[in-house]
Amino acid sequence: MTNQQQNDFTKWYIDTIQKADLMDYTPVRGCIAFKPDGFEIWEHIQDEMNRRFKETGHRNAYFPMLIPESFFQKEKDHIEGFAPELPWVTEAAGEKLEERLALRPTSETMIGHLYSNWIKSYRDLPVLINQWANVFRWEKKTLPFIRTSEFLWQEGHTAHVDEEEARQETMQMLNIYKEVVEELLAIPVYDGQKTPSERFAGAVDTYSIEAMMKDGKAVQAGTSHYLGTKFAEAFDIKYLNKENKHQHVHTTSWGTSTRLIGSVIMVHGDEQGLVLPPRVAPTQVVLIPVGPWKKNPAIMEKLDELYAALKAKGIRVRLDDSDQSPGYKFNEWELKGVPVRIELGPRDLENNQALIKVRDLTEKESVEIAVIVERIEEELTTMQTRLLEKARAFRDENSHTNVDSLEQLKQHLTDSTENGTIPGWILAGWCGEDACEENVKNETKFTTRNIPFNPPAEKATCINCGKDSKHTVWFGRAY
Amino acid sequence: MTNQQQNDFTKWYIDTIQKADLMDYTPVRGCIAFKPDGFEIWEHIQDEMNRRFKETGHRNAYFPMLIPESFFQKEKDHIEGFAPELPWVTEAAGEKLEERLALRPTSETMIGHLYSNWIKSYRDLPVLINQWANVFRWEKKTLPFIRTSEFLWQEGHTAHVDEEEARQETMQMLNIYKEVVEELLAIPVYDGQKTPSERFAGAVDTYSIEAMMKDGKAVQAGTSHYLGTKFAEAFDIKYLNKENKHQHVHTTSWGTSTRLIGSVIMVHGDEQGLVLPPRVAPTQVVLIPVGPWKKNPAIMEKLDELYAALKAKGIRVRLDDSDQSPGYKFNEWELKGVPVRIELGPRDLENNQALIKVRDLTEKESVEIAVIVERIEEELTTMQTRLLEKARAFRDENSHTNVDSLEQLKQHLTDSTENGTIPGWILAGWCGEDACEENVKNETKFTTRNIPFNPPAEKATCINCGKDSKHTVWFGRAY
Repeated sequence: MTNQQQNDFTKWYIDTIQKADLMDYTPVRGCIAFKPDGFEIWEHIQDEMNRRFKETGHRNAYFPMLIPESFFQKEKDHIEGFAPELPWVTEAAGEKLEERLALRPTSETMIGHLYSNWIKSYRDLPVLINQWANVFRWEKKTLPFIRTSEFLWQEGHTAHVDEEEARQETMQMLNIYKEVVEELLAIPVYDGQKTPSERFAGAVDTYSIEAMMKDGKAVQAGTSHYLGTKFAEAFDIKYLNKENKHQHVHTTSWGTSTRLIGSVIMVHGDEQGLVLPPRVAPTQVVLIPVGPWKKNPAIMEKLDELYAALKAKGIRVRLDDSDQSPGYKFNEWELKGVPVRIELGPRDLENNQALIKVRDLTEKESVEIAVIVERIEEELTTMQTRLLEKARAFRDENSHTNVDSLEQLKQHLTDSTENGTIPGWILAGWCGEDACEENVKNETKFTTRNIPFNPPAEKATCINCGKDSKHTVWFGRAY
Repeated sequence: MTNQQQNDFTKWYIDTIQKADLMDYTPVRGCIAFKPDGFEIWEHIQDEMNRRFKETGHRNAYFPMLIPESFFQKEKDHIEGFAPELPWVTEAAGEKLEERLALRPTSETMIGHLYSNWIKSYRDLPVLINQWANVFRWEKKTLPFIRTSEFLWQEGHTAHVDEEEARQETMQMLNIYKEVVEELLAIPVYDGQKTPSERFAGAVDTYSIEAMMKDGKAVQAGTSHYLGTKFAEAFDIKYLNKENKHQHVHTTSWGTSTRLIGSVIMVHGDEQGLVLPPRVAPTQVVLIPVGPWKKNPAIMEKLDELYAALKAKGIRVRLDDSDQSPGYKFNEWELKGVPVRIELGPRDLENNQALIKVRDLTEKESVEIAVIVERIEEELTTMQTRLLEKARAFRDENSHTNVDSLEQLKQHLTDSTENGTIPGWILAGWCGEDACEENVKNETKFTTRNIPFNPPAEKATCINCGKDSKHTVWFGRAY
């Protein structure tokens, strides 16, 4: 972590995303405006997710945003989980409504209601539908992208003949999330199962991918739920099987949201501002003329040529020919996290060279113009891989496996504060009792992230009570 | 028009979109669910619009859905236009809100507020932003896709240094709409200016593209507004010009919505169901085995081969190997409007042929399997063009230029009813008085569609008062 980040990570984060023009606050509590550079990161995520959803047989649809109050009552865990955060429409077109309508926090209820009409026979299954939508959770504490009253997300909702198929779907989608987050956003994640207290309201089992930010806190980057027949029973979603018997379907739901935009900033950003993985950077390469370029039209000609050549390769390129000084421009585009900068001045041109600067490397390098396009393509690819490796090394360094009791955890936290290091996460045993999880949280603010599928070690005793552990769990502070 | 369409066009429309699985009603008044086959038409429209918006320098962003009541008060025409249709959030997270929040009917106010912070200098201009979003207008009478309480749309919002540039933008976007609607949806449109009474609430000038449905009624398929400095004044959006003086920006807004899905059905559909232009059809080609195909594995092998070959060409293809009879499948896929069907049975295979049936042509044709892929590509292209030509011929036939007085219009309507023809639209003169427009509407339900840029004739006298006309106008009944 850099100095600014260490002093006050949240302040660094908010300053950076505002200066880099990703978002703006609005007068509506907890609702932000996604500016083009912020929104485009989301568009690249959408494209990649859509590609993978469609490859695996899913189709997009759109469901109403307003959900009748009575729908929430049908699944009791669900209403308990979401009721405290709902905004309500109570009037429309000058009249009071007979029944309040919630702004959707998620769509299991509306979709459950509709699926009960759409699904009649085993021939109608599976139903594999995804929706891109705005959702609302009226949170007390908000943080741009990470936790806002209105946010954007995708929510998949599928229905299956039996548990086995539904569980396969749940895992398939978690895997797709893991791949997209690691490959596109260069964010390494731990995949695993949530503990019962951290489950989605109404799920039988919830699985997540968990990402570590540079301050050591966790972001739950995606979740996939096996809902069993809970919503099928609540909304009467039945099908006639091949033996002509009525059966409840087994459903799943899974989601990722615009908090991924925040995560990519908090995982890769540095003192100079954003560092964007090339695959999601709105601008991948910026061209900047330097020296007395206005007196030398050959420079702009060459830059125009380079611009066209890069664009022809499908690279997202910009040419900054504004009146600002080169130094100002360098700072500006570093702040915005543009992966590669190309500088061209009179002397470079004479030598048929240009300077390139890769955002996360310190040195500039002279490159022959004749080979610069291929070189840039290479740099973008290697930077993408390097960012993932760096983030993985950082995450692994701060994933502690030597903390086995509450006392040790407290000592670890004291040490971190004294040494000015981040506490990171710890891998610890857990006996399975809610009370133990609760106590760790109360004492240290460390919550269970997930029970990883592939833990780096197995823990024998519960971190809180010392009894035999049932699960080996990641604990950490979370956004 | 076909018999069913003639008897009750609305019933035909609703039956067809439900049977073809494009949408479903929901328990929330006027809100529909967009099922995958309906939503995918929208996705193809989005892709094409996005491509053209980005080509012309626009970028996507996202703004809050909830708009404080006080924002609407700032532009008086705007609040008058939209207030009667707004739904309101009055409570959230268990508390009554201090100020009511409207579900956006359109975003000029929120965006105006934000642009006033974002725009400081001429260097910040133009601002060229588009948003894809859900919007709400609590309408009394609804019709799926065409008029719903919640719908999806895109709304562009741009800010410019002066009137000239803003007007150029307004026209540029109207032209893009015209091209997309004609080329992608095969719907011919008249482009022109709205009369003052039909202007967007808060606009200086509104322009539209107008499409004729098969029942002769009009759908306003897209609008583009020059807003002058009205919103800039209401929200104090100023920039420092090169002479260091503060100036109000000139703004535009422009939108198209999911009513385009409804339009494509109402323009091309027939007695058998949907007829989808290939470029927006979710399935472009369906492969159906016929005869005793289950006993003859060579048939499915050949179909699998064809499937792969078509898919490799980027064609959206489906293979229907379900247990239903061929006849059932033919009906099913015709109903869904799939452009081309390929049938393959044992005898066809022996002859190295397959039957193809193009959705809007009556005859099936035998085609050699060796050349079938290229042939299908050709058919898709020619069908796309043919649908536009057919729709244009129909539209022109029903665009009457020989109706010059209210008496003649009434006679025309009486004749239509007696002859069982549709009234269509009429081109007539208008003196420019609201009262004349109003009277034509009250007497005949014909409203002004637009003042076309390229009228097929110029009309000298007002259809209502007989005085000199100021404009030549399309009149018609509208959705």
